[in-house]
Amino acid sequence: MTVHSLPEGLRIPTFADVRTAQSRIAGQAHRTPALTSRTADQRTGASLFFKAENLQRGGAFKFRGAYNAIAALDGDARSRGVLAFSSGNHAQAVAYAARLLGVASTIVMPTDAPAVKVAGTRGYGAKIVFYDRYEEDRLEVTRRVAAETGATIVPPFDHPDVIAGQGTAVLELIEEVGDLDIVLTPLGGGGLLAGSALAAKGLSPACRVIGVEPEAGNDGQQSMARGEIVTIPVPRSIADGALTTALGLHTFPIMREKVEAVVTVPDDDLIATVRFFAERMKIVVEPTGCLAASAVMSGHVECRGKRVGIVLSGGNVDLAALGTHLATT
Amino acid sequence: MTVHSLPEGLRIPTFADVRTAQSRIAGQAHRTPALTSRTADQRTGASLFFKAENLQRGGAFKFRGAYNAIAALDGDARSRGVLAFSSGNHAQAVAYAARLLGVASTIVMPTDAPAVKVAGTRGYGAKIVFYDRYEEDRLEVTRRVAAETGATIVPPFDHPDVIAGQGTAVLELIEEVGDLDIVLTPLGGGGLLAGSALAAKGLSPACRVIGVEPEAGNDGQQSMARGEIVTIPVPRSIADGALTTALGLHTFPIMREKVEAVVTVPDDDLIATVRFFAERMKIVVEPTGCLAASAVMSGHVECRGKRVGIVLSGGNVDLAALGTHLATT
Repeated sequence: MTVHSLPEGLRIPTFADVRTAQSRIAGQAHRTPALTSRTADQRTGASLFFKAENLQRGGAFKFRGAYNAIAALDGDARSRGVLAFSSGNHAQAVAYAARLLGVASTIVMPTDAPAVKVAGTRGYGAKIVFYDRYEEDRLEVTRRVAAETGATIVPPFDHPDVIAGQGTAVLELIEEVGDLDIVLTPLGGGGLLAGSALAAKGLSPACRVIGVEPEAGNDGQQSMARGEIVTIPVPRSIADGALTTALGLHTFPIMREKVEAVVTVPDDDLIATVRFFAERMKIVVEPTGCLAASAVMSGHVECRGKRVGIVLSGGNVDLAALGTHLATT
Repeated sequence: MTVHSLPEGLRIPTFADVRTAQSRIAGQAHRTPALTSRTADQRTGASLFFKAENLQRGGAFKFRGAYNAIAALDGDARSRGVLAFSSGNHAQAVAYAARLLGVASTIVMPTDAPAVKVAGTRGYGAKIVFYDRYEEDRLEVTRRVAAETGATIVPPFDHPDVIAGQGTAVLELIEEVGDLDIVLTPLGGGGLLAGSALAAKGLSPACRVIGVEPEAGNDGQQSMARGEIVTIPVPRSIADGALTTALGLHTFPIMREKVEAVVTVPDDDLIATVRFFAERMKIVVEPTGCLAASAVMSGHVECRGKRVGIVLSGGNVDLAALGTHLATT
């Protein structure tokens, strides 16, 4: 990473920021369990440690980054409220964290966001503004609302406090289970992956960090290969939490320095992994949340003999969609 | 309970037997988590502690009783193997526990047992003998196989070591979360309920203990009302782990002395509760495993202001069936 080449004003978070985030979210975010499965270990020949962020408050890791970012605001900013654009889990997280911190929130959501996520976000007291994912630019919509309200935008991934907050999941995981050979996380815009890389390399420098994105939207893989941020059209995948079109200005530099590889997984493998978690481990993991696990369980990443940390990033899936995935044979 | 009226040779377990079971299964059974949910608490006005036996080895509490009963056998009995008849979870538990203890197992299962349970039982190395639930007497089939092989029958509920083993779940729960006002468990033949009553009354004498059975098969409720074991035809309910036709000779005396009431829940409420656990708590609980929770969540038992322990007894549900339950709106 060459810091002098970054756009002016860009603050790239460090391992110290992940530590700060850890103390900020203590007692607010759940310290989620590290689950293991003899069946998964036998199938892969590895020792897998699943960080169950589907059991996090709000049902996804996103609570960590949102809470950390909002808690870092001063009193004046808090009084003007916060604003977020999100395909779902980030929206719920911002709404939930804002409510806990006594801050008003407005969420800009795509019209095709899963119903359970819309309902969840409303349930946390947020005001919702809809936009058409395929027609409108969500950043423009968000900026318009921000200008009207004076609210502070909490971006879903491209922000140092958000990235640092997301890194606390892997920080906890390694503190609990010890050094890991490989850490894998789902990859959308890179907030979780970049934060996890900061945490993993900070605690365990030899640890390899791998991002996993849906096959239909491999902008991360392309970006890593070309050495610059590649923008793609909105991908179509059941991994609805990873339908990003480009990595962030804050996440990409961290990925270039600390992430070994980005691999992709097809939707069919995600469904198989959703089924595995329901059938064998009795937990609900949404398709996006299965990305990293699927890369290992479906054989896209060889982990034989290794100690592997895998972030299950969320569990917020429409029951109708989940029912269809499970009923499929 | 009037011990002198019991059939000769009947040994009714006590709280001390639950303690013995706890030490026998230590390090073998998982110490499952006590889960909480703000949403469930808000909905019921109570403090609910869910003992997540769906996360137990083999996917159900049954592992506790099976392991305790097999571990209590002498070397000669172990060498002749064990035999069980079961609609599912008990079969897997006996097969799993037997394998861990190096004991051969044969399982007598109904032909309509859920495919996932048949596969799971085979996967633990058991030999399976099928019978027709509506045509043949499972006890006769079992006794015939026992006579042929010399194996020891491990009954699904009507055995003191099985009952004592099942009691360890509530023992752990109260040790972890403190005194409870009410404990509720699913009720089939009464092994879990009787064991839980021993544990709850042993640790927390003022605790009320309530059993919950499917509406279609309320033999437990009838038996408690009449003061004698009532036998009913095989009930039809989605609670496939509670399709028993009569309480046990060992379980009923404990229930009469220590259980306050038996309530029933219709299948529709069980489905709503399966959905609640998947959607809000991100866990898979089978319909039978939802009986106790559903009694509280659907308002069949008033718990406002109380500290309530609820056993989620298992998570082994056919994915196709689960998919149908979840997809239903």
